[in-house]
Amino acid sequence: MSIDVLVSKIKEKKNPSVAGLDPKLEYVPEFIREKVFSELGKNLCAAGEALWQFNKALIDALYDIVPAVKPQSAFYEMYGLPGEEALKKTVDYAKSKGLYVILDVKRNDIGSTAQAYSSAYLGRVDIAGEEAEALNVDSVTVNPYLGTDGVLPFINDCVKYNKSIFTLVKTSNPSSGELQDLICEDGKRIYEKVAELVNKWGENTVGTSGYTAVGAVVGATYPEQSVILRKLMPKSYFLVPGYGAQGGGAKDVVNCFNSDGLGAIINSSRGIMCAYKKSERPIEEFALAARDEAIRMRDELCSVL
Amino acid sequence: MSIDVLVSKIKEKKNPSVAGLDPKLEYVPEFIREKVFSELGKNLCAAGEALWQFNKALIDALYDIVPAVKPQSAFYEMYGLPGEEALKKTVDYAKSKGLYVILDVKRNDIGSTAQAYSSAYLGRVDIAGEEAEALNVDSVTVNPYLGTDGVLPFINDCVKYNKSIFTLVKTSNPSSGELQDLICEDGKRIYEKVAELVNKWGENTVGTSGYTAVGAVVGATYPEQSVILRKLMPKSYFLVPGYGAQGGGAKDVVNCFNSDGLGAIINSSRGIMCAYKKSERPIEEFALAARDEAIRMRDELCSVL
Repeated sequence: MSIDVLVSKIKEKKNPSVAGLDPKLEYVPEFIREKVFSELGKNLCAAGEALWQFNKALIDALYDIVPAVKPQSAFYEMYGLPGEEALKKTVDYAKSKGLYVILDVKRNDIGSTAQAYSSAYLGRVDIAGEEAEALNVDSVTVNPYLGTDGVLPFINDCVKYNKSIFTLVKTSNPSSGELQDLICEDGKRIYEKVAELVNKWGENTVGTSGYTAVGAVVGATYPEQSVILRKLMPKSYFLVPGYGAQGGGAKDVVNCFNSDGLGAIINSSRGIMCAYKKSERPIEEFALAARDEAIRMRDELCSVL
Repeated sequence: MSIDVLVSKIKEKKNPSVAGLDPKLEYVPEFIREKVFSELGKNLCAAGEALWQFNKALIDALYDIVPAVKPQSAFYEMYGLPGEEALKKTVDYAKSKGLYVILDVKRNDIGSTAQAYSSAYLGRVDIAGEEAEALNVDSVTVNPYLGTDGVLPFINDCVKYNKSIFTLVKTSNPSSGELQDLICEDGKRIYEKVAELVNKWGENTVGTSGYTAVGAVVGATYPEQSVILRKLMPKSYFLVPGYGAQGGGAKDVVNCFNSDGLGAIINSSRGIMCAYKKSERPIEEFALAARDEAIRMRDELCSVL
């Protein structure tokens, strides 16, 4: 299973972290932006080109340190077709550098539409008998609000195409509890109900690593809930947002790991991408500043495991 | 408010329905596909071109009958960049024909990322002081699982840019109850809790029509729940999927309307797009078959209101 590929990359690099590639235009160092704007003007094409140049430099500086990258689709969609093109180039380049690519899309829909999303990102599309790939990644995030119908097409494609998914369970944002923490008649919270579904969805997809193709998104900002969720989903890998810029520290994410030191991959986006803003390195070395921070984060995580 | 624009278009055309544009390649009449494949080969570009030609003909045949169209993003994303390009052309063309465009994207994320999605579809993006539009539509669907943080950026842009949103409350698919029907400690179901949030989110966005910028997705396949939800969200417009191909009939959707005959817009996708498969018209008249079905649906809905 694809989750075994992620586990082996984590072991090989001794690093349970993922670099989020959420490139807002203001994160791109000014000298890159200025160069692109002077060449292409201030428009969507220039924005897409700036994101791609930024991402490529980051990937070059990070690919031997981190096992995975997680592009956030929203920050590419907002720049229209040039943004989407930058995403495709980023995904293809990251894959060529041996990185596991988790595309953060949080897609969800009824069964037939969920299948279309899965074909877009995990599977292949059929064009009158010819197979084509839209934007082929290793893993996507999905939202569970529609229940099993909306997730099953992704899981089937995980098995068929050797992929994985991460289902939102307990998200890192301040208002995540409004629905996710509601207590049901039987005393269980909604995030526990979703955890039970995640377990069920993954049961026939256990890989050689002992983990299933159906992971869970569990925010670093809710360490108490992570303890509960770790027990409820022992075989699911956790994708953990909220470390760094959102306020979670290494101690907060320890609960997301199993006793074997595996079971979780911690995301940092702004912390790594914008490391140059806090670094003593000259701005031209923004990618090395990102590398410094990725190494610091790796060492911090390893020190608490 | 933008919802007033939708209401006026519904009144003007005396038609509370929306044509879903979910163009699977196999829905496109064979003569269009064959022509495109012979010109471009069997690839993503050809798929995108086939979708666009199909959509354009449908819009030409429908724009004086229906007030709105609802493209489902998944069916464009699955054809990669050419699919996204077909979506953009479809959206722009539909707007040029005076149609209200509801883009079905079911996006959801933490606040800063939700803002990026909102900028992509409802607002504008800033490129070093220059404003640009990615894919500007009148309305999008959003998923409420992350709570207020994830929805507020969309609502703010509804006010700022005169737009609307439809929040998933009770979806039309068979497994929608797995989470949405769970009963909380206080006896309320999750969909009722979401309905309360939708009410709250919309309270400062009431337009001259009496409806708010924050609508709700309520499936035609659960008519008993529609009764409850109609009472809980009196000022929210309902976007109602599940009519036609998914099994819901005109009687099932009556409950989604208020006593003034307003308050809901009923979606049909396959029923309209694939009407030519059940029509006696020659295949070349596929768009007229779609028009026949849109008129039949309009008359059926009006007969029960």
